[in-house]
Amino acid sequence: MAATFVIAQGGGPTAVINQTMVGAVIEIQKRHPDARILGARHGVRGIRDGDYVELSDVPEEQLRRVGTTPGAALGSTRDKPDAAYCELVFAGLKKVGADAFIYIGGNDTAGTQQILADASGGSIAFVHAPKTIDNDLVENDHTPGFISAGEFVAGAFLSVDLDFRALPGVYVGIVMGRHAGFLTAAAAAWRDDEDSGPHLLYVPERAFSVPRFINDVRATLGRYKRCIVAVSEGVSTADGKSLVESIVPPDRLERDAHGNLKLSGGDLGLAFEHALRDGLPGTRARVDALGYMPRGYIGAINDTDSHEAFNAGAFAVEAAAQGGGSVALQFDGNKTVMKLVPLSAVAGKTRHMPDDFLKPDINELSDKGIAYLNRLVPGKYQVGKPFV
Amino acid sequence: MAATFVIAQGGGPTAVINQTMVGAVIEIQKRHPDARILGARHGVRGIRDGDYVELSDVPEEQLRRVGTTPGAALGSTRDKPDAAYCELVFAGLKKVGADAFIYIGGNDTAGTQQILADASGGSIAFVHAPKTIDNDLVENDHTPGFISAGEFVAGAFLSVDLDFRALPGVYVGIVMGRHAGFLTAAAAAWRDDEDSGPHLLYVPERAFSVPRFINDVRATLGRYKRCIVAVSEGVSTADGKSLVESIVPPDRLERDAHGNLKLSGGDLGLAFEHALRDGLPGTRARVDALGYMPRGYIGAINDTDSHEAFNAGAFAVEAAAQGGGSVALQFDGNKTVMKLVPLSAVAGKTRHMPDDFLKPDINELSDKGIAYLNRLVPGKYQVGKPFV
Repeated sequence: MAATFVIAQGGGPTAVINQTMVGAVIEIQKRHPDARILGARHGVRGIRDGDYVELSDVPEEQLRRVGTTPGAALGSTRDKPDAAYCELVFAGLKKVGADAFIYIGGNDTAGTQQILADASGGSIAFVHAPKTIDNDLVENDHTPGFISAGEFVAGAFLSVDLDFRALPGVYVGIVMGRHAGFLTAAAAAWRDDEDSGPHLLYVPERAFSVPRFINDVRATLGRYKRCIVAVSEGVSTADGKSLVESIVPPDRLERDAHGNLKLSGGDLGLAFEHALRDGLPGTRARVDALGYMPRGYIGAINDTDSHEAFNAGAFAVEAAAQGGGSVALQFDGNKTVMKLVPLSAVAGKTRHMPDDFLKPDINELSDKGIAYLNRLVPGKYQVGKPFV
Repeated sequence: MAATFVIAQGGGPTAVINQTMVGAVIEIQKRHPDARILGARHGVRGIRDGDYVELSDVPEEQLRRVGTTPGAALGSTRDKPDAAYCELVFAGLKKVGADAFIYIGGNDTAGTQQILADASGGSIAFVHAPKTIDNDLVENDHTPGFISAGEFVAGAFLSVDLDFRALPGVYVGIVMGRHAGFLTAAAAAWRDDEDSGPHLLYVPERAFSVPRFINDVRATLGRYKRCIVAVSEGVSTADGKSLVESIVPPDRLERDAHGNLKLSGGDLGLAFEHALRDGLPGTRARVDALGYMPRGYIGAINDTDSHEAFNAGAFAVEAAAQGGGSVALQFDGNKTVMKLVPLSAVAGKTRHMPDDFLKPDINELSDKGIAYLNRLVPGKYQVGKPFV
């Protein structure tokens, strides 16, 4: 009997999550010409509701075009199945006779696969293929989606720095990143000398304090006449509370099914505006949230990222043949290699940015942090030095 | 005696304002090998303070590299000279023996040139070279900087639309644009069918009302399950007040030297978030300000825009030879042509987006609006249709 593969996408879309889906589908079409390939719409929700798109016979050319398109072409979900939901998903997989389920997403998605695998008793191969702009999966050197997002962020801060050389002031750019500061750190990837912005980085791994922030900005203004700041939306105060929690009244906090706080709202930006107005009165200050641009801007899709994402999808098919697990992108000292690791090694765990990626007492990249980011997000533009 | 040219940049930087500066400098170097070329730092402020960079002998290769770099390499200013300030600028120009002053900027910058020209009595040629992402200069078909900004905005909304197909909800993207809606309209330039976002456009030219907005969003959600909205930061209510003015307490409103309100703050975004929370409770809604990205993102510099900006600079040198005026980019029905028009025709005037660029009762581009934007911001990416 021909094999049946179910494939789905979970969590926030990225610039290259479609490459992973397409990489898997093309690999299945090659390895198993008779296989049935079902794309579940909106992640596990599609399996629960029996909402599928037949991918078995979609021509490679059409698939490759979807691969180069950002977003999640199967739709996504933030549903986190509990036991009852899981039973429905499991029943859904049985109903279509699934032999393998490949779920592309971050650590929450790996967690869902872990629960399903535990419940299935081995009758179906559950594979997690990695995806996250946050770069926060353990067992991975980096994750598909991070390089494109990092490149967007590096370019954004390079550009804003040039803007603020012309019209000096303080700029605060808020970058997605709940628990891990990698993407915010990428803001400094293309900083080419002491004078270049971003001058200050604030990441979730280090406690944030408003007075310290104001002092840092004041000192930077004194030195460079402008101050470019990159800050993670997930920065927390010393008591471990996210800054958003200390700003927004509890009854207005919004959470998803995973209990994740909504961080991308305007309250955080306004709080920075007010802190700067009060702490540095009369100083021109602008606060932007980069928002959704880094995770899927069609003009900043990195080739290496696309390639690796595609390969991760293809490798997920091999992982299914081996009984399931989580696909991990590791670095062998020379190049990125795909490894299969147990779901339990990745599920629900968060990889933080190593503390020594930043200098000890300054919110600035260390040599180690620079080396890591330069390897993943190498310089792309030759900038003509301004005359100011 | 060799001629002396002074050149400066004013107003917000763009992706290509350096091309105009470089186009002028290279043209002067060619036409007048003995000329002295002084770049005034931070616009008229540099002339007032005698703060110049010598550009006469900067090698073409270095200049061309600066040309491809966004930002304003000479620095910029928002100073609007009054009579006393003007006298200092005029004295500054006399002091260096200026024969011509080329000032690159928008209608405020043209206004400054007009005042200086009126005061000079014809002894110095005052040239305004156009620049603005707002595309709001009269006498121009479009302005250098607009195409690159428009392309960024078109790509941003295409990308966000793909993101929200995967995880449905309401997205509001706030786009720079004080009085003219062109850049916000560019959000829809790459919309390829009814279903594609942005579904709603709100521009300063049409009165904004929160209840109408909520109704529009509700209707769109009913039709497409998601709603992508592009809104100009300068939208105004029917009483002519900008929406920001009706939100922010008067003592907190920030203005520049031209009396222009600061619109880019977080208050407007938060007001949209609250309006959506109250008007459509329980609906996932996200509000981003695109902020500074459109005007200078290094990854979205359009070739046509670069080329035209460079040519506008070169033409400004010819304009100086003709005694001064404002360089205008006009469309001859086939291609963009440079024309010299009087400063008074452009200074302080605002070109609005024609009302018939939008459909009469819907906040959606008309065929005329689409034709204009497609000519300037033609499609660039081949998108693979999602399966949802």
